[in-house]
Amino acid sequence: MPAKTRTVSDLAAHVGGRVAGDGSVVIVRVGSLDAAGDGDISYVEDAKFFDAARHSGASCFIVPDGSGLEFPCQIAVKNPKLAFALIAEILHPPKQRALEIHSSAVIANDAKIGENVSIGAFVCVGEGSIIGDHTQIRAGAKIGDNVTVGTDCIIYPNVFIEDGMTIGDRVILHAGVVIGADGFGYVRGDMGYHKFPQIGTVLIEDDVELGANTTVDRGALGRTRIGKGTKLDNMVHVGHNCDIGERVVIAAQTGISGSVTIEDDCVIGGQVGFGDHILVQRGAVIGSKAGVLPGKIVRPGVWWGIPIQPLDEYKKLNAHIGSLPRVREQIKELSERIRILERYLPKSDE
Amino acid sequence: MPAKTRTVSDLAAHVGGRVAGDGSVVIVRVGSLDAAGDGDISYVEDAKFFDAARHSGASCFIVPDGSGLEFPCQIAVKNPKLAFALIAEILHPPKQRALEIHSSAVIANDAKIGENVSIGAFVCVGEGSIIGDHTQIRAGAKIGDNVTVGTDCIIYPNVFIEDGMTIGDRVILHAGVVIGADGFGYVRGDMGYHKFPQIGTVLIEDDVELGANTTVDRGALGRTRIGKGTKLDNMVHVGHNCDIGERVVIAAQTGISGSVTIEDDCVIGGQVGFGDHILVQRGAVIGSKAGVLPGKIVRPGVWWGIPIQPLDEYKKLNAHIGSLPRVREQIKELSERIRILERYLPKSDE
Amino acid sequence: MPAKTRTVSDLAAHVGGRVAGDGSVVIVRVGSLDAAGDGDISYVEDAKFFDAARHSGASCFIVPDGSGLEFPCQIAVKNPKLAFALIAEILHPPKQRALEIHSSAVIANDAKIGENVSIGAFVCVGEGSIIGDHTQIRAGAKIGDNVTVGTDCIIYPNVFIEDGMTIGDRVILHAGVVIGADGFGYVRGDMGYHKFPQIGTVLIEDDVELGANTTVDRGALGRTRIGKGTKLDNMVHVGHNCDIGERVVIAAQTGISGSVTIEDDCVIGGQVGFGDHILVQRGAVIGSKAGVLPGKIVRPGVWWGIPIQPLDEYKKLNAHIGSLPRVREQIKELSERIRILERYLPKSDE
Repeated sequence: MPAKTRTVSDLAAHVGGRVAGDGSVVIVRVGSLDAAGDGDISYVEDAKFFDAARHSGASCFIVPDGSGLEFPCQIAVKNPKLAFALIAEILHPPKQRALEIHSSAVIANDAKIGENVSIGAFVCVGEGSIIGDHTQIRAGAKIGDNVTVGTDCIIYPNVFIEDGMTIGDRVILHAGVVIGADGFGYVRGDMGYHKFPQIGTVLIEDDVELGANTTVDRGALGRTRIGKGTKLDNMVHVGHNCDIGERVVIAAQTGISGSVTIEDDCVIGGQVGFGDHILVQRGAVIGSKAGVLPGKIVRPGVWWGIPIQPLDEYKKLNAHIGSLPRVREQIKELSERIRILERYLPKSDE
Repeated sequence: MPAKTRTVSDLAAHVGGRVAGDGSVVIVRVGSLDAAGDGDISYVEDAKFFDAARHSGASCFIVPDGSGLEFPCQIAVKNPKLAFALIAEILHPPKQRALEIHSSAVIANDAKIGENVSIGAFVCVGEGSIIGDHTQIRAGAKIGDNVTVGTDCIIYPNVFIEDGMTIGDRVILHAGVVIGADGFGYVRGDMGYHKFPQIGTVLIEDDVELGANTTVDRGALGRTRIGKGTKLDNMVHVGHNCDIGERVVIAAQTGISGSVTIEDDCVIGGQVGFGDHILVQRGAVIGSKAGVLPGKIVRPGVWWGIPIQPLDEYKKLNAHIGSLPRVREQIKELSERIRILERYLPKSDE
Repeated sequence: MPAKTRTVSDLAAHVGGRVAGDGSVVIVRVGSLDAAGDGDISYVEDAKFFDAARHSGASCFIVPDGSGLEFPCQIAVKNPKLAFALIAEILHPPKQRALEIHSSAVIANDAKIGENVSIGAFVCVGEGSIIGDHTQIRAGAKIGDNVTVGTDCIIYPNVFIEDGMTIGDRVILHAGVVIGADGFGYVRGDMGYHKFPQIGTVLIEDDVELGANTTVDRGALGRTRIGKGTKLDNMVHVGHNCDIGERVVIAAQTGISGSVTIEDDCVIGGQVGFGDHILVQRGAVIGSKAGVLPGKIVRPGVWWGIPIQPLDEYKKLNAHIGSLPRVREQIKELSERIRILERYLPKSDE
């Protein structure tokens, strides 16, 4: 991946950091402490990494304010990991693909393609669709009719976006993502299942990133929404009519049934399962592999288990379960002590 | 999504309902009670929704027989939700794509393409394959050699169907579905794993719908089957040689190991895991996130847990687990009562 | 699937087996005992299958050494199932696709394509990429820039391999596999999440097979590796910077968070979840649906549960849980016995 070089002073200015040592050192790329070498910038998150940093070959270190570290070239900031991420955005921007519409792409006559757009081979863009400026659509992605894709998006290979869906700005859809497949809703009749209408839409707001092979189903009658700044890992399933708020993080393989609301700033682990019509309130945290029953209201706090409980209670209950062998021994001991006492009961009693 | 307009009388006739009020009202689309407006038909499932219905702007309501509801325009039926689904099928048929083979598609010379077929851009249809009448194959789908696809199917973008597989009539395969990948079978030798032959087939029967990114592996030596009218949600994994019956419903992210039989009319939740060689008997219901051990026979009834138990027993056991803190207190109390009793034991005893 | 015919003697020589009966019998294909007929070879794993074998119509049987079985035509070997797999490799080699680059494929001018390579329709191979001899790249697969794919690989339709990734020899990537999507790493700032750099690589070593729709994320800064001879089932998620050893087997829908190491020869069930920074030591076995907490070291042995425990302990604890109803009865009984004893306490006491 090609990188853009910068001086340490430039990078420090970008993240509001304080340079110590030679600010004219040229930085080529970011690197981890153990692998970094000449031209690399690395970061020292906290005291746990001081020793690794002292053995690192990085040309510059991002260190925490007031750490007492004194490398020949360093940038001190409040949050080194965040500064490292921001610097990486500069040094390693997404690869710029050719600013062209590949000759093999099939673009509807009335599609509106913005400026500086890159459209790869075997891409389709359907009738009435709009592709925003600076957006990259990579090989084999399929965009239906009347789709809106914002500016500065990256749509990876083999993504499919169904007719009528809306994608905001700076959205990243990794390979194999499917936006707007029919939700899973049927009505049982005498002869089997009839499809409940799945004719709604999907809104993916700005700054969302969806991992590879993740699917977001269209609303049945209404809309499925993924809020601004929300990040989903690979193979997450979002059912019809879900409303996922802003800045929500959901790890891989979590499945969300229909009509679930997850409010802003929630954090959801991997392989979590949600029944339908759940409300997860703002800022709640749900641990990996948890299961949430249909209709549940999940209040703020940290939750785990199947079905979910507050993490503290879950841990206590697990400790109680772990004590079961001891419980059964105790019962035996009590029984024996009672047996001895019973010897002293009058013989005739009962 | 374009809709076909109908009068209320027409729609009532289609679902065998009884019109009250003005049957000449023209209906354009279906809608939910809260969002419906002029030209919309909505439905009132039961008394819980009477109040929402009274505040709804729908032009016509489908109501339960004998509900006592008296809207200016309504259709009374036994099952309003089913009638609503049937009416939606009429008002919102799947979008009709251009009845053509796109010029970019690669169709083998000896493939047999039916009448009124729509084949999108970048589609492949291999040698000896047969595509039934009125079937839509959307952009980027890949159909191998000697595949049979029935009539009135919708094959969404980026679906892959391996050589020799068979797809029935009115089948819907959502984007990213893979039919006929090799099953997961190996034999360990001295140097590592050798592939057990994965040379069998897949049969997808009529009226099956498979959700986005779902995979159905080919049989090892025999056949994997999905029975008529069965519906699978997104990201369901069906292993080699499974036999899934008719009218089975399986929610998202459930995984089914090899050689599992699920008989007709079963209902399986999401994220369920099946070991191999399981038999799920007709009509059994298995709750989400359950785990079924290899070789298990699951009798009719409702099951939950890892490993699965009858739901009632599972709930009882969960209640017992919840009582563990009280159990440990009780043991302490008993011990204290015994200690008091023991004071009265003769000093010399034992 | 076309098969290559061989005589029983030829096949026996290939697997080092001993022929009894007529070695000149011509074998066309492999088959299961119940379905095999004229021209088929089948195998008898152990005594459980003797009876099925006696009723089978196979032309030749692979039997265990010293079994006492005396079919008119048989091959005796130490491991019949392994011999069957090896014979199937000969009789049923992967279908040979046309040795050509399809005219629709988009191959960069400086890509190096080996000899006897088959490249299907709508395939992309990017700048600087190398495709080894005898490799098949099927329709719609997308290979980025500077990718190396070894010899004798099969890349199925709609696979995506990101720029800069490395694939060994004899690797099989099933349809929908995504190699090198960004890992899931963010740093929270005041305004939301910033992407932690995801600029590393993926190395897929020789003889690896990845199931349909499986995803292997690129390293954040370093590398994600899948070791030689390792086999992953469908929809497995491998996070950034994981290091999966050699001859590891992982069943469907298992999810592995970032920076997990799984050493050689481990066996992992389906739907298992791994937190980050776990070390699974050589040869460990983890049962399906298990959950492993972040940072855990999993020693050799067999493990199950959420969180994982040694299988024996897990089973014991489950038995204890099953005994809970009895425990609560016992406590009632003890309480009653104490109550009787307490009648004999002096009235004034306490």
